[in-house]
Amino acid sequence: VQVGAAVGDYAVTVGRGLLKSLPTVLQAVAPGRRVALISDSNVGALHGGAAVDTLAEAGIGVRAYDFPAGEASKTRRTWSILTDRLLDDGFGRDTCVVALGGGVTTDLAGFVAATFLRGVPVVQVPTSALAMIDASVGGKTGVDVRAGKNLVGAFHAPRAVIADVEVLATLPRAERAQGLVEALKHGAILDEGHFALVDDLADRLLDGDADAFARVVLASVEIKAGVVQRDEFEGGLRQILNFGHTLGHALEAASSYRLPHGSAVAAGMVGEARMGEALGVTASGTAERLEGALRRLVGDVRAPVDPREARGYLAADKKAVGGRPRYVLLEGIGRTAGSEGWAREVPEDVVEAALASVTRGPEPAGA
Amino acid sequence: VQVGAAVGDYAVTVGRGLLKSLPTVLQAVAPGRRVALISDSNVGALHGGAAVDTLAEAGIGVRAYDFPAGEASKTRRTWSILTDRLLDDGFGRDTCVVALGGGVTTDLAGFVAATFLRGVPVVQVPTSALAMIDASVGGKTGVDVRAGKNLVGAFHAPRAVIADVEVLATLPRAERAQGLVEALKHGAILDEGHFALVDDLADRLLDGDADAFARVVLASVEIKAGVVQRDEFEGGLRQILNFGHTLGHALEAASSYRLPHGSAVAAGMVGEARMGEALGVTASGTAERLEGALRRLVGDVRAPVDPREARGYLAADKKAVGGRPRYVLLEGIGRTAGSEGWAREVPEDVVEAALASVTRGPEPAGA
Repeated sequence: VQVGAAVGDYAVTVGRGLLKSLPTVLQAVAPGRRVALISDSNVGALHGGAAVDTLAEAGIGVRAYDFPAGEASKTRRTWSILTDRLLDDGFGRDTCVVALGGGVTTDLAGFVAATFLRGVPVVQVPTSALAMIDASVGGKTGVDVRAGKNLVGAFHAPRAVIADVEVLATLPRAERAQGLVEALKHGAILDEGHFALVDDLADRLLDGDADAFARVVLASVEIKAGVVQRDEFEGGLRQILNFGHTLGHALEAASSYRLPHGSAVAAGMVGEARMGEALGVTASGTAERLEGALRRLVGDVRAPVDPREARGYLAADKKAVGGRPRYVLLEGIGRTAGSEGWAREVPEDVVEAALASVTRGPEPAGA
Repeated sequence: VQVGAAVGDYAVTVGRGLLKSLPTVLQAVAPGRRVALISDSNVGALHGGAAVDTLAEAGIGVRAYDFPAGEASKTRRTWSILTDRLLDDGFGRDTCVVALGGGVTTDLAGFVAATFLRGVPVVQVPTSALAMIDASVGGKTGVDVRAGKNLVGAFHAPRAVIADVEVLATLPRAERAQGLVEALKHGAILDEGHFALVDDLADRLLDGDADAFARVVLASVEIKAGVVQRDEFEGGLRQILNFGHTLGHALEAASSYRLPHGSAVAAGMVGEARMGEALGVTASGTAERLEGALRRLVGDVRAPVDPREARGYLAADKKAVGGRPRYVLLEGIGRTAGSEGWAREVPEDVVEAALASVTRGPEPAGA
């Protein structure tokens, strides 16, 4: 299975065993360029050697770089170190960065490419479910800073995206579940059929079934690509991709980022659906249906976080306008409410009730 | 006098007393945005207070930031500090950065804007002759790193450029001369009339005559804008703007950046013209005419640098292809040779002879 979706000027290819096609893709989209292959220490150890060998056999100059795995590496410091290593090794304008890894790697290596000699091409090779489903489309790159996640970065569209769903089988089940939350979100905002597909295939997807993943990743990529193409730089429609994310980001921050992104967004989606129901915008029963599907993926959707602490982070949301956070509200599964703009303010008491319903207080210390 | 040139989607306005028009420009190109005004410690002290007052009187929210004056501040570290200060002060997506200063400020503040929350608008207010003539057009932003100048950055077009030629009168004569070297370059590569104009007006320009500067800055902006519009990201024609810069950058580096950019480019232009003459590409007499005009601006064009050291830096030029530096050659004043591409390799012995002719050995220690 190998299928592609065109996203503006680049193609996202989804299929099995695609890592082997990397030289062919590079020769097509970045001919004659030296490759700086960037991955984290885990993915580098698993797939880096094979990728280097494949490229070298095809006569493509390549050098591999890695950095310690984990969100803690997604910093300006790691970005600086990688940039300096490439410069020290003589990489110039004829560089193509290949980002091989999960979301931390695709964001970080993408930002290296975006700013290296004012921008060199990048080919994204996402290896986590979340990166395939979400981060691979849209051209967002960046790093975390003291004040929050992803606050420094650039839009830098890749030359190509290669999603080899076979590598997902090697991931822990919980990590696949995290990525699938975003697939459910794509269905929830725009496509009830996709929502139902992810829900139907949940068991096979959680088991890492490559064919099920190829279907879901491709459909999610097509949904997201449709949105991004209509709004590349996030002024309008693209905001709907933030469904679940205003609450979700606040929950993540309140957990000091111990709560994984997918779990936080799962709680956020349910909470924001409850807000919509309370306001009469969202059809009643929507939150319950969302919660059922999400529970199959990540278990109890309630976040182990103090709701008062999460409220403090809502005001600091980077999408807030004039210090007031805004929320994307559904009409129902597959439909987003747009009559008052794609994101709107919500009364404090409604936010408070929703937050209370999707939190269960902090884990006891040492738990 | 107030004149404008359209550069893609933004206007460059050149005239006298334009700092007062900043609120009007911002209301037109960045309505409703909070302003982060970035300047260095010198320019901030001279013009920052007035700019803040003008904006505040117009009801525009503004906060001023400065950093220590000098090229040594053009680093990822200063960029990080400025970014964090803006975030700490609650700047969000409704930010407009205003860069008020010379080339270091326009490059550095431009890079802050390019990467702040993945990009916010910037309005450039260049206050040095070099920044008005050269840096204001083209959207280049960036910082210096250990391996060289401007090696990290982004293309980020400003929303508007405001060049108030009256502020040039407060600069030292030598600094005006540095900027005028680039104006002569614009004439040399594309417009003999502009070259002659700068040469004719040299005395008035060096004295800081605002009307003379308005004419020259506008004409230079129009020449550069014409080139940049045809080649925004530097693949083709835009290379001709690098005339004098391959040798010039090597001379700058060999002087440990003690040699000012304009002086280095002056030597580079004469050297590259001599290379062209030696190869029979450039009309004979061109180097001499260039040298005469440049001498009126910066004095002796020969760089106080060891030519062997400069040669070492040529191989590391970021525009080098496969480790071999490339040069833009003139046909004559106002015409660039393009039959073999806009930049080409040149035999070692020709480079060596040219370098010898535009260097005069290092200054004695302690001089």
